[in-house]
Amino acid sequence: MTDPKELLALGVDLGGTNARVALVSTATGVVESERIATSSLERPAQFIDWLTRQTATWSRDHQLVGVGIGAPNGHHGRGTIENPPNLPWPGVTPVVALLAEATGQRVTLDNDANAAALGEARFGAGLGHEHFAMVTLGTGIGGGVVVDGKVLRGADGFGGELGHLIVEPGGRLCGCGRRGCAETYASVRGLLATVREGVERGEPGADAFDDEAFRTDFEAAGRRVGEAAAAGNPLALRAYALAAEMLGRALADLASITAPSRVVLFGGLVLAGDTFLGPLQRHFEAGLLPCHRGQIELVASSLPPGHAALLGAAELAFRRAAGA
Amino acid sequence: MTDPKELLALGVDLGGTNARVALVSTATGVVESERIATSSLERPAQFIDWLTRQTATWSRDHQLVGVGIGAPNGHHGRGTIENPPNLPWPGVTPVVALLAEATGQRVTLDNDANAAALGEARFGAGLGHEHFAMVTLGTGIGGGVVVDGKVLRGADGFGGELGHLIVEPGGRLCGCGRRGCAETYASVRGLLATVREGVERGEPGADAFDDEAFRTDFEAAGRRVGEAAAAGNPLALRAYALAAEMLGRALADLASITAPSRVVLFGGLVLAGDTFLGPLQRHFEAGLLPCHRGQIELVASSLPPGHAALLGAAELAFRRAAGA
Repeated sequence: MTDPKELLALGVDLGGTNARVALVSTATGVVESERIATSSLERPAQFIDWLTRQTATWSRDHQLVGVGIGAPNGHHGRGTIENPPNLPWPGVTPVVALLAEATGQRVTLDNDANAAALGEARFGAGLGHEHFAMVTLGTGIGGGVVVDGKVLRGADGFGGELGHLIVEPGGRLCGCGRRGCAETYASVRGLLATVREGVERGEPGADAFDDEAFRTDFEAAGRRVGEAAAAGNPLALRAYALAAEMLGRALADLASITAPSRVVLFGGLVLAGDTFLGPLQRHFEAGLLPCHRGQIELVASSLPPGHAALLGAAELAFRRAAGA
Repeated sequence: MTDPKELLALGVDLGGTNARVALVSTATGVVESERIATSSLERPAQFIDWLTRQTATWSRDHQLVGVGIGAPNGHHGRGTIENPPNLPWPGVTPVVALLAEATGQRVTLDNDANAAALGEARFGAGLGHEHFAMVTLGTGIGGGVVVDGKVLRGADGFGGELGHLIVEPGGRLCGCGRRGCAETYASVRGLLATVREGVERGEPGADAFDDEAFRTDFEAAGRRVGEAAAAGNPLALRAYALAAEMLGRALADLASITAPSRVVLFGGLVLAGDTFLGPLQRHFEAGLLPCHRGQIELVASSLPPGHAALLGAAELAFRRAAGA
């Protein structure tokens, strides 16, 4: 280490497809990383064993300040992963206690969206912004809100749920049991719902999606809507436009409460570029309180895909080491 | 002073009807207070002169740590009151600089809703809650949001605008120029709008409000809706029920972002008691994300009327003195 102030930590991103762990430097970001298929981690013990081996390998050559983990339904205060939607682990897993016991490291946990926000805060588009929000537009919507430089977790640790702002009272049924949440429109699942409605109604452009594969293969269907929009299919374009309108409403309400200077966007919908970001920018700006207009930038994440959560997981460890 | 740690400051609440200033103790709250009719403060200089005299009087006998001011459109970061809606002072008044120059005191300013939240935080129903919100249901809706013990002001100082959460897209036109803001339904102005709509449609109970005085005397009209609801008038009850539904939506969205442990309510609508708070509690609880249900208390302010803003204004000075 040439920089005496450089610190190293491990960052872990537990996703539905892969689990990844990286050696992260405060000076240079991701140094090296490893991954494993989540499907091979049938029980929490296998996840802990894998991480314990990785930690042992890296800690032989490096002094680590700790291990940070970002995971779906990871609870920062309790150190537990609770009924994660995309993992085969029902119930509550005390990963922080298990991994600390196995490795002797200081272990810190948060949900994946908050970890991504911290990654942007330290290494990405959130740098220099004391008040910003990170929105991940994937299968659902993940939200991480930073206020005064800190992740807004709230009294029970479940703050920052931007995907569950209600943007259309009485609207689409959400997985949370309520109606009209932003993620029922402005996520891959939301895009597909709009297209399926269009197919049922026989809207212009529906022919491109009226087949069995579209109804059954979620991942391929999402890609097809993106490709169709790029080719000018009117139904696909309408799905992106509706997603933009609804996300614009959610972000305007976010702004009324937290007044960020920037909103960082990441995930599948952002890949559609101006097809999505153009209408989003217009709906967002028009929907803001007059005092906020022209004050809040919408930007796409500039970090390599998947890096935000890894870096942010390590940032959890850096902040813990700094006493934050 | 018997308690060596007791501190004293002046708290100022600049309202549309009266301006008030109080000597406030960290130990006992309001020690004594003075008031003046706002209508007599035609120019900012008269407000500064009045405060300078009060400060001189109290500082002869007491050591003050500073003066805090809560005012409509008061901007904490800039120290200015900007185009206040209920004062005859157009433009931007640098009250902090003017009063500091005139008195030699350290002067701190915030908007009235944030001051009220700080008053509850230090002396009222926010005590012991690191994450809570204060909602003042008056002519409009004032919101103050406390996160990690600090007022959420955001990057531009205009955070916490709970009254401008959009609860009914395409709904009633708001003074902010947008449609469907919570305060167009869940404020005295909102109640009157609902009743006026009911009168136009000849709804049951409308007879009680179909007169010239109701249309022209705002203050009396607000009182009459409250009295009619207490007497069981169905249109007045519907106005409170709609206000409760719409405020419930706003508070559920607030909870999705900030996850408070408590929401403190204050102002005219709260005086209606269970007529309003009963349906509000039901709509709020049903509208919450499942993880928040049963976790967030709705309570009425327990401070004497008008004290929250005075105490919170002084709390601005106490926090400034403590280096916060």
